[in-house]
Amino acid sequence: MVTKNQIKLVTSLQQKKYRTLHGLFAVEGIKSVNELLESGLTVQNVYVNNRKYIDSVDSECVMVTDTVMRQMSSLSTPSGVIGVFEIPKPKRFVGDGWTLALDAVRDPGNLGTIIRLCDWFDIEHLVCSQDTVDCYNPKVLQATMGSIARVNIHYVDLPQFLNENQLPVYGTFMNGANIYEEKLGDKGILVLGNEANGISLEVEKYVTRRIGIPQFGKQTTESLNVATASAIFLSEIRRG
Amino acid sequence: MVTKNQIKLVTSLQQKKYRTLHGLFAVEGIKSVNELLESGLTVQNVYVNNRKYIDSVDSECVMVTDTVMRQMSSLSTPSGVIGVFEIPKPKRFVGDGWTLALDAVRDPGNLGTIIRLCDWFDIEHLVCSQDTVDCYNPKVLQATMGSIARVNIHYVDLPQFLNENQLPVYGTFMNGANIYEEKLGDKGILVLGNEANGISLEVEKYVTRRIGIPQFGKQTTESLNVATASAIFLSEIRRG
Repeated sequence: MVTKNQIKLVTSLQQKKYRTLHGLFAVEGIKSVNELLESGLTVQNVYVNNRKYIDSVDSECVMVTDTVMRQMSSLSTPSGVIGVFEIPKPKRFVGDGWTLALDAVRDPGNLGTIIRLCDWFDIEHLVCSQDTVDCYNPKVLQATMGSIARVNIHYVDLPQFLNENQLPVYGTFMNGANIYEEKLGDKGILVLGNEANGISLEVEKYVTRRIGIPQFGKQTTESLNVATASAIFLSEIRRG
Repeated sequence: MVTKNQIKLVTSLQQKKYRTLHGLFAVEGIKSVNELLESGLTVQNVYVNNRKYIDSVDSECVMVTDTVMRQMSSLSTPSGVIGVFEIPKPKRFVGDGWTLALDAVRDPGNLGTIIRLCDWFDIEHLVCSQDTVDCYNPKVLQATMGSIARVNIHYVDLPQFLNENQLPVYGTFMNGANIYEEKLGDKGILVLGNEANGISLEVEKYVTRRIGIPQFGKQTTESLNVATASAIFLSEIRRG
C-alpha cells in the first residue's frame, strides 16, 4: 500500500530543492528503471500501476492506482513505472584522460544528450558549473536513457576547478582553431558553453586553447547546437 | 486589420493537411522570420502583436491583439511574431556530392537538428521517406532556426529513390564497419534510420556499405540519438 507521504515525496522530487533535501531522484519508464537497478544504484521504491509490469521490473514493486500514478508522474502520459533512487556520490575526480566540462548549459534535453554521449565515448567525469541544469531533472533523465548511472557528474565552481587543475583546457568557440587540424593529446578538459552566450568570460580566462568546428555551408550567424557540437568534439578526441 | 479567415488560416497551418492544401507554412520568432525573409522565400504575411516588432521585421506587418496571437500560435508562450510563407519547390535533385537520406525519422526535434546540420556541413539535398515527420511542422521549424531555407528537402518513396540512383549508399547500423577507418569518397548517399527501429528492411536492400560509430564506453544496448549520430557521420564526410 502506498501512503500519502510517499505520494507527496515522489511528486516533490520533480523539484531540485526536494531532491537535494531527500537525496533522492525519480526516474520513469521500465527500461530506464531496469538500467538503473542493474547499474547498482540504491533503489528506494518502484511504483507501478499495472500488474503486468511487476514481472518485468528487477525489484519489488508497489502497486498504485492510475490516479496516483498521474499525481506522481512528471509526464503528461505517465509510463506506468516510476523508480525512486538515492542520488549517488560521484567518484572522486581523477584527471587522467579526457574530461568534459559544461559552462551554464540550461536545456535539459541538451544535458541528457551530452550525458549519453559521455557514456558512449567513455568520458568518466562530466564537470558542470553550478548554473548548469540539474542532471536529476526529469527531462534530463528522460533524454539520458540510463546513461546517468555510468557517468560521474560533478557540480562545481567551474573557474576554481579549472584553476586547480594542471590539464590543458580546450575551450570551444565559433572562431576557434579548426578542430580537424588539431593535435589532441591523450588528456585534457574540453569546455562547452551556454546555448545562447557560449563560454563565460570568467571561464574563458582558464582556456589554454581555443578550438572550433569549421562551417562548410554558407556562412551564417547560427552556431551548432551544444549537444551536436559535443558529439563532434568527442568523436574527434576518440577517433585517434 | 486581420480577418477571421486569416486567423483560421494561420491556425490551420499547424496541421500538415492544411499546409499541403494551401501550400503555406507558418514560422514563429523574429529571428527565424527575418532569416526566411532574407533567404528569398515568398512571404504571404507577417503578424505581430506589438508595435516594437514592426521596425525589426524586414517586411510589412499586420498588427494583431495578444488574444489573436495566442490563437494563431503553436507555442504555449507565443513569441509575438508569426510569418506565413509559401512552401518552396525544392530544386531538382542532383547527386553530385553527398546527400543525406532519412528513413522514418519521427521526432520533430531530431529532424530540425538534422536540417541545421545539413546547412552547417553544406549538404544541399536532404531526402526523406514519406513517413518521416513533415519539415514544416512547427516543432521542426523551431529547431531548424532558419536553416530550412538553405537546404532542399525532398519527400520521396525512399526505396525507389535509392534504386534509381547509381551512387554508393552508406547505411548506418550499430554493427556497421568502423566509420573512422572508412575511406569515404566525394559522393554518396548516407542513410539514417528510425529512432527505435533503425533502417527498414525495404531500404536496407539498397545499402551498398554498412557503417557505424564504434562504442568506446561499456557496451550497452543503447544507440546514439539519430541527430548526434548524423553530426558525427557528416563531420567524418567533410573533415577529409
